[in-house]
Amino acid sequence: MSVSIGDVERAAERIAGYIRRTPVLEVAPGLFLKMEGMQHSGSFKARGGFNRALMAGELPEAGLIAASGGNHGLAVAHVARTLGVRAEIFVPTVSSPVKVAGLRALGAEVTQVGAVYAEAYEASAKRAGETGALDIHAYDQAEVVAGQGTVGLETLEQTGGVDTVLVAVGGGGLIAGIVAALDGRARVVAVEPELIPTLNRALEAGRPVKVGVSGVGADALGASQIGAISYDLTSAAGVRSVLVSDEAIVDARLELWRSYRIVAEHAGAAALAALRSGAYVPAPGERVAVIVCGANTDPGDLV
Amino acid sequence: MSVSIGDVERAAERIAGYIRRTPVLEVAPGLFLKMEGMQHSGSFKARGGFNRALMAGELPEAGLIAASGGNHGLAVAHVARTLGVRAEIFVPTVSSPVKVAGLRALGAEVTQVGAVYAEAYEASAKRAGETGALDIHAYDQAEVVAGQGTVGLETLEQTGGVDTVLVAVGGGGLIAGIVAALDGRARVVAVEPELIPTLNRALEAGRPVKVGVSGVGADALGASQIGAISYDLTSAAGVRSVLVSDEAIVDARLELWRSYRIVAEHAGAAALAALRSGAYVPAPGERVAVIVCGANTDPGDLV
Repeated sequence: MSVSIGDVERAAERIAGYIRRTPVLEVAPGLFLKMEGMQHSGSFKARGGFNRALMAGELPEAGLIAASGGNHGLAVAHVARTLGVRAEIFVPTVSSPVKVAGLRALGAEVTQVGAVYAEAYEASAKRAGETGALDIHAYDQAEVVAGQGTVGLETLEQTGGVDTVLVAVGGGGLIAGIVAALDGRARVVAVEPELIPTLNRALEAGRPVKVGVSGVGADALGASQIGAISYDLTSAAGVRSVLVSDEAIVDARLELWRSYRIVAEHAGAAALAALRSGAYVPAPGERVAVIVCGANTDPGDLV
Repeated sequence: MSVSIGDVERAAERIAGYIRRTPVLEVAPGLFLKMEGMQHSGSFKARGGFNRALMAGELPEAGLIAASGGNHGLAVAHVARTLGVRAEIFVPTVSSPVKVAGLRALGAEVTQVGAVYAEAYEASAKRAGETGALDIHAYDQAEVVAGQGTVGLETLEQTGGVDTVLVAVGGGGLIAGIVAALDGRARVVAVEPELIPTLNRALEAGRPVKVGVSGVGADALGASQIGAISYDLTSAAGVRSVLVSDEAIVDARLELWRSYRIVAEHAGAAALAALRSGAYVPAPGERVAVIVCGANTDPGDLV
C-alpha cells in the first residue's frame, strides 16, 4: 500500500471545501514558514481526517473513532462535527489538558487510556470492532497520508517552489504525504526530537523499530514507531532524518512567538529548530520551507 | 498636505527590503484576515517608520525620536536598530509592561510620561527640538501615512480584490494610508471602540475633536484626537465609522485565537469585532478584508 502524487491531488480536490489554505510567511529571502497551526482544529491533521471520512462514502451510525496523542483526536472530532456524526477518541494519559478539553468542547467522547499512543490505539481498535465506527488512523492509513500531503502541494504553490521542505516526524503521516506530493520536486528532510527518533532509528535498522517516547514533543509526536506507509515512502525517497534537542525545540517555539507572533506547540516548532540549531544547514541560496504543523498549546508561557 | 496612491506605491518600493509581506488567511469564502501582527515589531507601524526614516536621507546623530502608545515606539526602535541609529521613545504611563519591556529590549531609551498619548507627544516634541533627532509621528505625517498604506496595496493583491476593508482607528494613520492606497477600488470602513471614537466624533463635528480615551484598546488606539491628514482623507472619501463595545473586542480577540490560532492585541481584534457584533453587516456575496493590525499582547489570558 502506497500513496502517489495523484492520490494527493485527488485528496486536495476532495477536501478543498473543508480545509483552510493556510498562509505562508517569507521570513527571510527564500525561507518560508507554512503556518499549518491555523488549520481547522489547530494542526494539519484535519486534512487526513476529512480525506479518510469523505472517501468512505456513507458514514456508519457509530460515527468516527480514533486514537491520538491529541491533535489527531481534535481533528477527527472536528471532522465528525462538520459531517454531522459522532466521534469517539482514545488518548494516552500524557495528552495535554488543553487538548483533552478541546476534544470535549468539540462534542467528542474521550477516553484517556495508556501511557503512550500505542496503548490508546489498542483500546480504540478493540472498540471499533465492537461498534462498527469508521477508524481514522493517526498516520498509517493511505487516505490519511494522502490528505496530509496536501500541505506539500500548497507549499509548492505558495512559495513558487523550494529546494527543501523541513517536516517534523512522529508517526510519519505528514512527511509521507509530503514526499508523495512533492514527487521529487523538492528534497524532504525529516526533523525529529532526539528523544523520539522514530524515523531515524528505522532508517538505521532498515525497518520500523520501537523507540522511547519522552520530552517536550511527546504529546504530539508520541508514536513509538514510524508507520509502515511512511517508512516505505520516506526510505524509498532517500529522506534524511536530523535530530534536535528539546532545548532547541523550546528555543524555536519562543523564536516563532517573539519574532513573528506565531504560536506553535513544541512539535510544531521542531522543524524550525533544525535550522536554528544547525542540525540542518542550507546551502547558500537554497530555498527552504519549514512546516509549522500545529498550534494546540497553552500560549501562557510565551513572552 | 495629503497622501496619494502614488505616494503609497513609492513607499512600497522604498520599504520592500525592510518589511514583511504579511500573510492573508481566507477564513470563509470572501472573508480575509490580513495578519499584520506578524510584521516586524508586531504591528503595521514598522511600515510608516521605515518610510519616514528612508525618505529623510542621512539620519541625524541623535537618531530617531517618537511618542507612542507603544506599537509605534516598538516600530521606531526596530527601524532605528535596523538602520543603525539611536531611538528615544516617549510613552504614556498607560502603556502595557509588555510593550515597554519590548522597547528596552530593542535598545531604545524609554521615557514614560503623561496619562495619555498627547502628553507623551508634547514631551517628545520638546526633546526633539533640543537634540535634533528625526521625529517620526505615530500617525499625522505624510510619510508615515504613505508607509501604512502599503498594507492596503498588499491586501488588494493577496485577496484578488475585495469590496470592503475593515480597519481599526486610533490616530488614523493606518486607515488614511489604506484610503489612499485603495483609491476608490474598495470601500473602507472605520472601526472604533465606543470608548475612543476619534473619527466617529470628528465626522459628526465636521472637524477633529478631542475624545476620552479608555477601555481595552487604550494602549494602542489611545490617541485622543484623529490626525488632520487622516480626517481630511477619510472624510473626503466618505468613510463610515462603526463603533464596537469593549466586550465585542474581547470576544473577537478570543475568537481569533480559538478558531485560527492567531494572536492579536485588543486593538488588533477591533476590526473583526465589527463583523461579529453586527456593527458592520456585509451584503450577501460581499468580499471583506479585515486588518488584524497588531499582536503586541501577553497571550497568557488566551485559552
